[in-house]
Amino acid sequence: MVTYNDIIQAHHRISSEINHTPVMTSRTLNRELNAEIIFKCENFQRVGAFKFRGAFNALSQLSSLQKASGVITHSSGNHAQAVALAASILGIPATIVMPKNSPQVKLRATCDTYGARVVQCENNVQSRQETCQQIMEKEGQTLIHPYDNDQIIAGAGTAAYELLQEYPHLELIIAPVGGGGLLSGTSIAAKGFNSKIDVYAGEPYNADDAYRSFHSGIIQKNSDPNTIADGLRTNLCPRTFQIISQNVTEIVRVGEQEILDAMRFFWERMKIIVEPSSAVPLAALRTGEIKIARKKVGVILSGGNVDLTTFFEVFWAKIED
Amino acid sequence: MVTYNDIIQAHHRISSEINHTPVMTSRTLNRELNAEIIFKCENFQRVGAFKFRGAFNALSQLSSLQKASGVITHSSGNHAQAVALAASILGIPATIVMPKNSPQVKLRATCDTYGARVVQCENNVQSRQETCQQIMEKEGQTLIHPYDNDQIIAGAGTAAYELLQEYPHLELIIAPVGGGGLLSGTSIAAKGFNSKIDVYAGEPYNADDAYRSFHSGIIQKNSDPNTIADGLRTNLCPRTFQIISQNVTEIVRVGEQEILDAMRFFWERMKIIVEPSSAVPLAALRTGEIKIARKKVGVILSGGNVDLTTFFEVFWAKIED
Repeated sequence: MVTYNDIIQAHHRISSEINHTPVMTSRTLNRELNAEIIFKCENFQRVGAFKFRGAFNALSQLSSLQKASGVITHSSGNHAQAVALAASILGIPATIVMPKNSPQVKLRATCDTYGARVVQCENNVQSRQETCQQIMEKEGQTLIHPYDNDQIIAGAGTAAYELLQEYPHLELIIAPVGGGGLLSGTSIAAKGFNSKIDVYAGEPYNADDAYRSFHSGIIQKNSDPNTIADGLRTNLCPRTFQIISQNVTEIVRVGEQEILDAMRFFWERMKIIVEPSSAVPLAALRTGEIKIARKKVGVILSGGNVDLTTFFEVFWAKIED
Repeated sequence: MVTYNDIIQAHHRISSEINHTPVMTSRTLNRELNAEIIFKCENFQRVGAFKFRGAFNALSQLSSLQKASGVITHSSGNHAQAVALAASILGIPATIVMPKNSPQVKLRATCDTYGARVVQCENNVQSRQETCQQIMEKEGQTLIHPYDNDQIIAGAGTAAYELLQEYPHLELIIAPVGGGGLLSGTSIAAKGFNSKIDVYAGEPYNADDAYRSFHSGIIQKNSDPNTIADGLRTNLCPRTFQIISQNVTEIVRVGEQEILDAMRFFWERMKIIVEPSSAVPLAALRTGEIKIARKKVGVILSGGNVDLTTFFEVFWAKIED
C-alpha cells in the first residue's frame, strides 16, 4: 500500500515540473460557514488538474525499456492530457484511447498541444478497454491506469502534502471522490502528516458508489452515473477502497443543484474557474453534515477544465448585436 | 498632483481592509511572448476589482461631518460597489445613482449585499449627473468621482505599488485606460519606485479617447464608445490626462476580437475570470507594438465582474437534457 513516505518521495521527484499551486480563501464563505476554509487550487496545475502530479510521478519511474515501448491509457478527461504532457516532457511515446464523442477541444489538446497519438473508439467502457487491450498486445505499451496505480495515488497525494507544508494547522481535509485516487492520496498525506486530521469526501448522489461501498463494506458500482461532475462517474477499485475504508471519516453526498450552486460561487465570487467535480467538496461542506464550526479546513480543488465554447459564442453574439 | 508618497500613505491607510492580491503567471504565455509576464490579480480584490482600493482610501479621509452627511456616486459598474462596500465598512451612508438598465445582479449586490441606497435614473449620462446633483443639493452628500479625484488615484496606484514590492525588477508595466484613474496611479507608483520603468496602456480602438488625447495634446472624447470593455468607455479628465501625458510611453489600441481572445486565454488556460477591460493589456502586448522580448513585464488585471447568468442557464439546461 502507498505510504506517507511514498508521497514525500513523489513530491521530490515531480517538484521541478509541477506548478506549486497557490491556495485561495474567501471572506464571504468563511463567514457563511463560520470556519476557515483553505482551497488548494489544482485548477491552476499544469493541464488544469491535479492529474499531472500522478502522471508525471508514474511515467518518470518507468524502466528504459518501458519508456521506449511507450505508454497507453483510455480516458476522455484530464488523465489523458496529463499522461500526454508528462510523456511529451519525458520523451515517451503516448497513445490515448478516446471515445468518438469526446469534445473536439480535448481531442485537439491531447494530440496537437501534447503530441500524443489519439485512437478513437466507440462511446462505451467496453470498447475503450478492448481497443486499449488490442493495441497493447500488438505494440507492448505500459498501461497507465487513472487511479488503480500506486504511483498515480502517491502523485495525487502531493497536493495535500504541499497544502499541509504551508498550512500545518489544518484540522480537516476534504476532497472529491470518483475512482478514489485523489481521495486515497489525500488521506495518506493527511494521516501521515498528523493522524488527528479528519479526512472527508464529497460525492454526487447520482454516482454514489463510494458512499455505498464505504457503508456496506463491499465495493458497489454505479449503474448509470448521470452527474455534471463528469470526473466522478468512475467506480472505486479494491486498491482505493481499502485505503479509503481505513482513513476516511465520512463520504457526504450532494445533489446536482448543490454542485452547480457551489461551482457558481467559485466563478462569481472567487473569480476562479473550477470544473463541476471540484465544486463537490464545497457543496458537501454546505450541507451541514460535517462539523466544521471554527475549524481550519483544507479543500482540494481538483481541476478547472470546462468547455467554454458556448459561453464565448454567446458573449460574441451579444457584442455583434 | 498625486505623488509617490501619497500612494505609500494610501497603502498604509487601506492595508488592513484590502486583499493583498496574488500574482499569477503562465508558462504558455511566457513562451508565446518570449518574456516574463507577471499578472497582478485585482480580479481577486474585494468587490472583484481594484476600485475598492481607491474607494476605501477616499472615504476613510472624509471629515466627521462629511461622513455623517454620506457619500454619493453615479455608476453602473465596479466603482459603485466599491463605494458601497467601503461606506458600509466605515459606517457612512451611501447613495448610488444607477441607470434603469443596469444588470439586476449589480443592482442587488449594491443594495442588498452592501446596504447602499440605490436611486435609479434614465439610461444616459445626463440623467445620471442631474439625478446625482439634485440629491446632493437637497441632502448634502460628498460626491466620490470614479477617477477625477486624487485619493481615488492614489488608492488605485497601490496595486502597482504592491506588485513592485514583490517584483522589484519589473522593467515595464501596463494597465488598461478608461477614465485614467488606474493608469495614473499605476504610472506614479512605477515612476516613483524606479523612473526607468516604462509605463504603457492598452485601450480599445472603439473607445480610443486616451490615445487621441495623448497624441494630439488636447483632451478628446469618445462619441459612441461601443466596446465590450465596458469599464473603459469613459473619457480622460484634465487631472488624469496631465499625469498620463507626463508618465506614459505609449497607448496601444486593440480591436474587439483581440480583447475577446485575450479574455478567453485567461479563462481557458489560466482558469481565472477576468472582465473584458482586464484583457485589454494582454491584447496590447500581443500586438507586438511594445518591445517586450526577454523583459519582465507587470500587468494590472483590473477586475473580474462578468454576468454569468446566461452561462449557468446554458449549463443547467444541458444537465436537464
